[in-house]
Amino acid sequence: MTGHVAVLGAGSWGSAFAKILADAGRDVTIWARRERVAEAIRTTRTNPEYLPGLRLPDRVDATSDAGEAISGAEVVVLAVPSQTLRTNLAGWTDFLAPDSTLVSLMKGIELSTTKRMSEVIVAAAGVAPDRVVVVSGPNLAPEIALEQPAATVVACTDVSRATLVQRSITTPYFRPYTNDDVIGCELGGAVKNVIALAYGMACAMGLGDNTRAMLITRGLAETARLGVALGADPLTFAGLAGMGDLVGTCSSPLSRNRTFGEHLGRGETLEQAQTATRQTAEGVKSCLAIRDLARAHAVEMPITEQVERVCHEGVDPRVAMAALMSRTTKPE
Amino acid sequence: MTGHVAVLGAGSWGSAFAKILADAGRDVTIWARRERVAEAIRTTRTNPEYLPGLRLPDRVDATSDAGEAISGAEVVVLAVPSQTLRTNLAGWTDFLAPDSTLVSLMKGIELSTTKRMSEVIVAAAGVAPDRVVVVSGPNLAPEIALEQPAATVVACTDVSRATLVQRSITTPYFRPYTNDDVIGCELGGAVKNVIALAYGMACAMGLGDNTRAMLITRGLAETARLGVALGADPLTFAGLAGMGDLVGTCSSPLSRNRTFGEHLGRGETLEQAQTATRQTAEGVKSCLAIRDLARAHAVEMPITEQVERVCHEGVDPRVAMAALMSRTTKPE
Repeated sequence: MTGHVAVLGAGSWGSAFAKILADAGRDVTIWARRERVAEAIRTTRTNPEYLPGLRLPDRVDATSDAGEAISGAEVVVLAVPSQTLRTNLAGWTDFLAPDSTLVSLMKGIELSTTKRMSEVIVAAAGVAPDRVVVVSGPNLAPEIALEQPAATVVACTDVSRATLVQRSITTPYFRPYTNDDVIGCELGGAVKNVIALAYGMACAMGLGDNTRAMLITRGLAETARLGVALGADPLTFAGLAGMGDLVGTCSSPLSRNRTFGEHLGRGETLEQAQTATRQTAEGVKSCLAIRDLARAHAVEMPITEQVERVCHEGVDPRVAMAALMSRTTKPE
Repeated sequence: MTGHVAVLGAGSWGSAFAKILADAGRDVTIWARRERVAEAIRTTRTNPEYLPGLRLPDRVDATSDAGEAISGAEVVVLAVPSQTLRTNLAGWTDFLAPDSTLVSLMKGIELSTTKRMSEVIVAAAGVAPDRVVVVSGPNLAPEIALEQPAATVVACTDVSRATLVQRSITTPYFRPYTNDDVIGCELGGAVKNVIALAYGMACAMGLGDNTRAMLITRGLAETARLGVALGADPLTFAGLAGMGDLVGTCSSPLSRNRTFGEHLGRGETLEQAQTATRQTAEGVKSCLAIRDLARAHAVEMPITEQVERVCHEGVDPRVAMAALMSRTTKPE
């Protein structure tokens, strides 16, 4: 293999992913928006602001000059906030090597367009869809930093690119599986944030493991229904980018969406939950886009609908849960 | 609807199921092996020995005379220990009404034959397969007793029987979905005990949510591979009787299999774990039968194989986990 890997974005997942690449034998250059972060990585081999506990291998370089990071890169990994991706790409496209592979680590839906991240990349960078690879799975960055065993999915319509990325991130603690279902992998990552909000509400309401398992399972079922309407393979949702990511997120006390849902489940308003957590969880925003996508494709997503009502219409979580349970019974 | 429902077995799940049936408007007679348990149910409306906290509705009667319970029953629910089912049925078959529906609540594989519970019922009771209904899902009995929201799957090759049972157990807190995949539902319930052992080991080894989510997801994938080889629908494993039951069991600190796995993960021998928990978890036994089934059908089940090695060949759980992570990478 020739050419280094550029990782654009020095947040917790971008940084942990750089470590994986280096441990798998690749030379890596991280781009950080702020020079202070890039300098910390270069001089201390750590990223204390975003992922304390991570120790970066010597193969990882860092810069705040995106052109320097991207030029000559065989693989370009995108790990910036979902809603800034389009703007960022506009400034980066000229540096991309003609046949470079673009990898998305981002899990979101662009609010203004309801597009998935790979769709935004294709449109904003003007690249063919088969150059875009999606990596998604249960990959909490702090655990990766500790080299705890984890697995992920590497999805691309072009099998040879998926295999290139798979080889570039296989280490004794990280196990990537290839898949050709880009749509399914991306939807799994986006909708899981909404279901994690519902899960957090159930936790705060004192509901037990039966109810929580039901929410996860039926939440995945409605994710799969939307996915199939958009062209995904239903079996993807039974995999690491579907149930794996959903289970990992719901189980983790570190999950921002679950935590936010717990605040709502205790009867706090959206504003109170935002104040308490000092942020708006991703699922709070994306439940609107996902509900709109579902309605546009005539797909029933009862959990997403109820989460949207609790978040944006002031409905009591207890009323929302009762509404879920009183629907007519049907085949699975 | 005419005819009462007989629930044969007064353990925790049989008792909670009787409550569901009564709350859905059915008259129920529970059979308990010991008259003392039947009398407690009749006189106190509770089952303190098996499910303290349960309050049984007045529609529930109890007897220690199986013939009395079964005679005239339109629906007969079987909730006895898996390995005693065949022997029990031998004594009960003569009492069965000609067109009665048999419902299995049991999650196990008969060790001597590697048969699923519905297969044992068909063979031992001499009934047609379309008379047997399987109920399986994330249904921890203590939470049902508290009327916490839960969902389940009602599986039968005869849709009209599945619907009959669905109607007989629909309540505001219990939501049954029908399915025609009996094989898939039963396998999900049986293999989940083995995966929960691996999950417990990972917990005790200090492994985090990435590793746990990976075990659940890849555990379900190997369950589905075996299922498909035996004739199941792969999508069943993405449902309540597959991932739902698996997630519920792994998440619950009440799960015997997870707890047993934690003992093994702390380095205890099988004997030490048995002494500490005063029992042998179901998965410890069934991992042998499931491994044999997998080998007979040339299906790879790496997690089951490693669990069997830890339980029965004295392999260190750390060595088993490392073996799982070092397999060659592949498509999902």
